[in-house]
Order: sequence, then C-alpha cells, then structure tokens
Amino acid sequence: MSTLLQAKKETPVQHDILDVIKDRWSPRSFSDQSVSQEQLNKLFEASRWAPSAMNEQPWRFLVAKKGEEAHQKLLDSLMPGNQPWAKNAPVLVASLVKKTYTNSGTPNHAAHHDLGLAIGNMSAQATHDDLAMHQMGGFHKSKIMDSFEIPSDYEPVTVIAIGYHGDPEQLTEDLKARELAPRSRKQLEEIVYYGNFK
Amino acid sequence: MSTLLQAKKETPVQHDILDVIKDRWSPRSFSDQSVSQEQLNKLFEASRWAPSAMNEQPWRFLVAKKGEEAHQKLLDSLMPGNQPWAKNAPVLVASLVKKTYTNSGTPNHAAHHDLGLAIGNMSAQATHDDLAMHQMGGFHKSKIMDSFEIPSDYEPVTVIAIGYHGDPEQLTEDLKARELAPRSRKQLEEIVYYGNFK
Repeated sequence: MSTLLQAKKETPVQHDILDVIKDRWSPRSFSDQSVSQEQLNKLFEASRWAPSAMNEQPWRFLVAKKGEEAHQKLLDSLMPGNQPWAKNAPVLVASLVKKTYTNSGTPNHAAHHDLGLAIGNMSAQATHDDLAMHQMGGFHKSKIMDSFEIPSDYEPVTVIAIGYHGDPEQLTEDLKARELAPRSRKQLEEIVYYGNFK
Repeated sequence: MSTLLQAKKETPVQHDILDVIKDRWSPRSFSDQSVSQEQLNKLFEASRWAPSAMNEQPWRFLVAKKGEEAHQKLLDSLMPGNQPWAKNAPVLVASLVKKTYTNSGTPNHAAHHDLGLAIGNMSAQATHDDLAMHQMGGFHKSKIMDSFEIPSDYEPVTVIAIGYHGDPEQLTEDLKARELAPRSRKQLEEIVYYGNFK
C-alpha cells in the first residue's frame, strides 16, 4: 500500500519552511496500521515541552485505541459527519484543559491557547514520524464529560484522530473530494502587520 | 560571542523527540543581532500552515522592530517585570485573534487554541533557525487595543519577544538565576490517560 505517497499534498509556500510543518495536513483516510505505544509516547513527549503561562502545563490527553470501549465512547461523542471516517482511526484522543491554575485556583485564561501550543508540538512530531492527525471541534463536550466522568475543573477541547495515512479510495465520494482538494490559506499579507494594525 | 552555546539547555526527555521541539526554551537574554525580514517571513509562513476550526485562520501578528515607535508601544504595554529584558529583543510581536468567524459572524471559541497551534509552528521554525521566542501573557491588553487602535473584533493574546540567544551575564542577578534554572515539566503519566480519566 502506497502509504507514503498518499501522505504528500502540495503546499504552496511563499517562503521556505520545515518539512514537518509544510507536510502536515488533516486527512480523513487512515490505514489499518496500528500505532505503537512507543510512537504515542513520542507524540505526548513532544507536547510535554511546550511553554505555558506560569508553566502550568494545562494540557491533558485521554487516549483510546481502536477496539477499546473508550474508542467507541469518543466516537459516539462526535458529530455525525465525523463518525464515518473517524471510526477507522487507530487512535482517538480527547484533548482537555485544566481550567484553573493549580497554585491559586484562579481561572487560567491561557489554557486553550497553551493546549494549542502543545498540540502544535505533537503535530510536528507526528508529521516527522509519518503519522497524521485530524483535530475535530465537532463533538459534544457533555457526552465526553458524562461518559468519562470528567471532573468539572477540566474541559474537553478537541477530539484528535491519529494514524497512518490511508487510501482516499476507501472514503465516500464527498469525503474523497475533500481529501483531494488543494490546501488553501490566507496570504501572509493578510495575517502579518508591520508597525500598525491597518 | 558564543551565541549557539547559550542556546542549549538540558531537556530531560522521557522519549526521543525532534530537536526543534526539545531545544526550544524561553530566554530573557537576547543578543543585539537583528533578525532579517526573510527570517521573519519564514516564522510567519510556518504559522500560516497550522490547522484551524473551519479553516478560519484566526491568527494575526503585529510586528515591531527595535528602534521603531511600535516596538516602544508594545514594550510600554508589558508588565514592569517583563520590560527590563524585553526591551533588548530585536523584534516584539503582538499575537492577536479575530474573535468571530468571517462567514457567519458568530463567536469563534477555537480562536485562542488555534492561535496556539500557529505559534507552535512558529516556535519550531524559530528553533530550527537558531532563534528564540519568549511568549508573554503579562501585558495590558487595553494598552495595545488603544495605542494601535485595534478593532473590537480582534483581541491581543500574547506579546512575543524574538531574537537570537544572548549572554545570560547581561541580565540582572535574579533574571540570570531564572535563565540558568533547569527546565521542569510534569511527568508524562501526569498528563496522559489511557481509556479513562482517573
């Protein structure tokens, strides 16, 4: 199976950047190759070294491997549009934040931002290791809170499908079209301002 | 000047990860070497390819180079503890989010998280290019909103000092002690849960 061929997607960069950033994209097709525990350890190790406000490290990860009850529970939390393809991901991970600072108990307004930093690290490591991640906001937080009895000081933020790239042919026609669509981003000039914000 | 020697800090990883993740840390000492425009372009290009909810790309960056009025304005927005060292950073960047989705005008609750993903990318690129970034939450948002006349649909989230690593000896004694302190993180077992969240 041409796993590595499927993993490449054209990325029209304006400036030269690292391959682990350029080659990352969010597929819906995963191969049935499982992800080893040591490989998962590397992904979470990468997240571990992100910076965070007050070094709080508010990120938490709830990991479920295909075939496990927890995998089905995370799958059940997803919006209907995500379930048909996410069910094939060998690993589903709920990302969560601790909503308050451990020392003071006051709200941590940087928690979501800092979770993003940690997952950015994880993504670069995954891309380097030929893994793909697809992050989803489309899920019911209450389902995860209830089915895993998450304490109220924690909040699920995304569900992430993780696995090796699969053949787009295994997707339905509409998902296949999205899988093969070109990547698009705003131009640099639309996101970077020099000296003033006009 | 032993710029590259200063850049290294011991990182006690539990599992092998990419150098661009492992070697990143947040210094307070910057050399007086300026950062070229092409180098800055690479950092923002890296941020550009992060994923985001609905591909909204809510991240914006307001860049100010040392000597410019905007650099002084960003410096003035910082909490007093950050100013003494941040004033030496050749580049200060305010990161912002667009708070609503462009298509629907509804609140984008993923904006802060997705900004984190973009800055995670930027950090990896910076580390690869021997640059350091120090992200600060300690600043007055209202000062940036006012002095740059930021529209109300945008929110400043961090101010980031960017530059090449400098000599810790140029810091005051208390900051030097923090600069040389060992890195610390929670153990993997404290942030990763398998199958349940207990």
